[in-house]
Amino acid sequence: MDVLRELVHRQLTEAVPQLQRYCQQPSIAAQHIGMPETVEFVVKMVTKAGGKAQVLDDCGGNPVIYAEFQAGVNGNQDKTLLFYNHYDVQPPEPLDEWTKPPFGAEIHDGKLYARGAADNKGELVVRLNAISLLMENGGLPCNVKFLIEGEEEIGSPSLPAYLAAHADLFRADACIWEFGSKNAEEQVQLVAGIKGMCYLQFWCHGADVDLHSSNGAIVDNAAWRLVHALASMKDANNRILVDGFYDDVAPLPPELLQMAEEQPFDEEKLRQQLGLRRPLITGDENPNIHLWGAPTMTICGIESGYTGEGSKTVLPRRAQAKVDCRLVPDQSPEDILAKVRKHLDLHGFTDVEVSLLNGEHAYRSDLSHPFVQMVVDTAREAYQTDVVLAPNSAGTGPMYPFGEYLGLDLPIVSTGCGWWNSRAHAPDESIRLADFEQAILHMVLLMREFGEH
Amino acid sequence: MDVLRELVHRQLTEAVPQLQRYCQQPSIAAQHIGMPETVEFVVKMVTKAGGKAQVLDDCGGNPVIYAEFQAGVNGNQDKTLLFYNHYDVQPPEPLDEWTKPPFGAEIHDGKLYARGAADNKGELVVRLNAISLLMENGGLPCNVKFLIEGEEEIGSPSLPAYLAAHADLFRADACIWEFGSKNAEEQVQLVAGIKGMCYLQFWCHGADVDLHSSNGAIVDNAAWRLVHALASMKDANNRILVDGFYDDVAPLPPELLQMAEEQPFDEEKLRQQLGLRRPLITGDENPNIHLWGAPTMTICGIESGYTGEGSKTVLPRRAQAKVDCRLVPDQSPEDILAKVRKHLDLHGFTDVEVSLLNGEHAYRSDLSHPFVQMVVDTAREAYQTDVVLAPNSAGTGPMYPFGEYLGLDLPIVSTGCGWWNSRAHAPDESIRLADFEQAILHMVLLMREFGEH
Repeated sequence: MDVLRELVHRQLTEAVPQLQRYCQQPSIAAQHIGMPETVEFVVKMVTKAGGKAQVLDDCGGNPVIYAEFQAGVNGNQDKTLLFYNHYDVQPPEPLDEWTKPPFGAEIHDGKLYARGAADNKGELVVRLNAISLLMENGGLPCNVKFLIEGEEEIGSPSLPAYLAAHADLFRADACIWEFGSKNAEEQVQLVAGIKGMCYLQFWCHGADVDLHSSNGAIVDNAAWRLVHALASMKDANNRILVDGFYDDVAPLPPELLQMAEEQPFDEEKLRQQLGLRRPLITGDENPNIHLWGAPTMTICGIESGYTGEGSKTVLPRRAQAKVDCRLVPDQSPEDILAKVRKHLDLHGFTDVEVSLLNGEHAYRSDLSHPFVQMVVDTAREAYQTDVVLAPNSAGTGPMYPFGEYLGLDLPIVSTGCGWWNSRAHAPDESIRLADFEQAILHMVLLMREFGEH
Repeated sequence: MDVLRELVHRQLTEAVPQLQRYCQQPSIAAQHIGMPETVEFVVKMVTKAGGKAQVLDDCGGNPVIYAEFQAGVNGNQDKTLLFYNHYDVQPPEPLDEWTKPPFGAEIHDGKLYARGAADNKGELVVRLNAISLLMENGGLPCNVKFLIEGEEEIGSPSLPAYLAAHADLFRADACIWEFGSKNAEEQVQLVAGIKGMCYLQFWCHGADVDLHSSNGAIVDNAAWRLVHALASMKDANNRILVDGFYDDVAPLPPELLQMAEEQPFDEEKLRQQLGLRRPLITGDENPNIHLWGAPTMTICGIESGYTGEGSKTVLPRRAQAKVDCRLVPDQSPEDILAKVRKHLDLHGFTDVEVSLLNGEHAYRSDLSHPFVQMVVDTAREAYQTDVVLAPNSAGTGPMYPFGEYLGLDLPIVSTGCGWWNSRAHAPDESIRLADFEQAILHMVLLMREFGEH
């Protein structure tokens, strides 16, 4: 084991500069920045690790990269592990809130700072380097495949089509999902599912031009219309008021309620870490229950009129908002959209437009599948710390189509190299190189174990 | 009269290029752009027109320019007319909605396009050229003074101090206010008062950092807080719900109700001109009554989180809104601020901050003062069209401090060279050169008449 740790440590001299170069390549799907260059970069990394890469672009959108690594002569030819990753990242805005350049990949105090470091470039480099290490030390113990897509941060609109068209290519016995991090207690967090997503774009147009605000005495205001429409959808206590929104929400089963109770949740630490000003919205209930089992409705953005320095007396011609709803199993994004539209119409907001920017169903693996426990056990060995498993992440990803096209019994577990302050989607995203190193070891141990059973 | 019209027409060869140069000089008070350069420019224009300029900067803020023109030897030495203008302009944003450069001052189809052309650079050039013309043709018929300030578009925060400190300098028998335009019926619109202003800045801070939106299951959201706070202040029928907001609002007196009925209001034309999507908020009531006598509460801007292209799943750390309330006589901005603060606290929004960005009281001149009729009559003669007088504008300006420091019986009438689609405060602000020419004639006739009575 000490020898293996030493091998992993030596692997860093290759892995860290590779991660820096990868993070220095912007790849912002929402803004159409750097996608072809990043595909080329990923293909080179796969090839360098000893795999074969295939760029799939027959189903529209940004290409999906398929990568394949054959089990060595001493490996198990009958077992295939699928890794899911994505090469796109969130937009880096607001830029003025970064203290390091978002595409600089600078290392300070053992942390590598970059948009995408934690979500999801670090994980891909971890996995490829685990494979390299195994190939150079006795050979790969199982077959490995990768699905590396380029639209995860915009809701993976093309992914289901690629999975449907190339299901045979991606077929596997188990899947390791893209992300993961340590929590504030430095425990490794694993999840075996994800929430769904219904990302809504609202627009209200009141006039062709911005008006002098003196017209407020007689002219209706798109910003007020949108504010009232939004306020009608959720009350100040965070109860969602859209009729039927909770219809398909099942309460968590007793075993998950028990898991929720058993897992730590340090509210005070979270409050300090994030600088929260308000109490949690969960009241007396266990926050884990909400993170795992409660659907959400979050204003991700709202904008209208003049918001610069000082005052401008304008009556804005239009207003927009972006709202995401995280869904639980059995909720459907299209159904939620229809319910929101009906709600707006019923409440007199026929002038407020709403459209679905992206939608995804939730997914939960069968927690009793041996693969799930195998990921937990190897994590404990690699990280030498507590490991906690959640039935699903509070976040979202395109896990459901994997089940839909590769088999709904496919066990999927997510793990990655983030830490409790990685700030995915926010300024100063980072990973710690110590976690990065442990994550490589975890993947090495998992592939060994997976090949043997 | 024909000779005079010809003289005014010839004056354009000087006046139009001067206006272009003035408009090409940005002077955005809210953004601290170009203020000293503009002061210098105005002083030169005053001097060139034969006046003496004095830059007052002893009361803070952007300087106030005092200008003085002596009545000619044949003029009335005992009568003094005061002009009020401002050299600052609104911010040009949103820049991508201008079809001409906002500081290009380009002339197309008889219109001069620029930020500030209608509000308020055109008017100053009109008045200075009327004076030049009179001085070169028999002498100035009365004394003329100017107060030209540089903070009108940010609420004239320093003006009261300058008026208080220099009241003797600015003392006059009557005052012509800064702005005016023709309405959609091509009638000249004059106003003898203005509404007040309570411009509020709202902030809500929920966390130190933007969060991944999966946290929406447990963490409160500054954008939702602000949306709910705003929605609690005004209902969807545009009734303001802040307790006591309407306490000091007196109904219009019968003579003003009658004026409101007599004056045209072409709703259909307004709807087409502005591309309005919703019915007017005045229901069956005469819109003039609301424009003159109803206080407002307008969201001028709101902003939080990500509002760029595509989707970003973020829970924003903060949200802001800018709201202006147009006030009627007897409402006080400080009192309205206190009532809004109390309302927020009572409704549980102690976490929503509100501050007064600028406040102004409303003002109405005595409509029976002979000066008011004199401005109406000379306008009719100069423009050769209908003239309509309103007791006050739906807009705002620092008229109240003029009354407070120079005498509350000071008759103040506002007139200017705008047209019904001048788009003050909006993209593609413009004036028509034909109106500009008529406005010079109006000021020539008014000064003559004023000197004789």
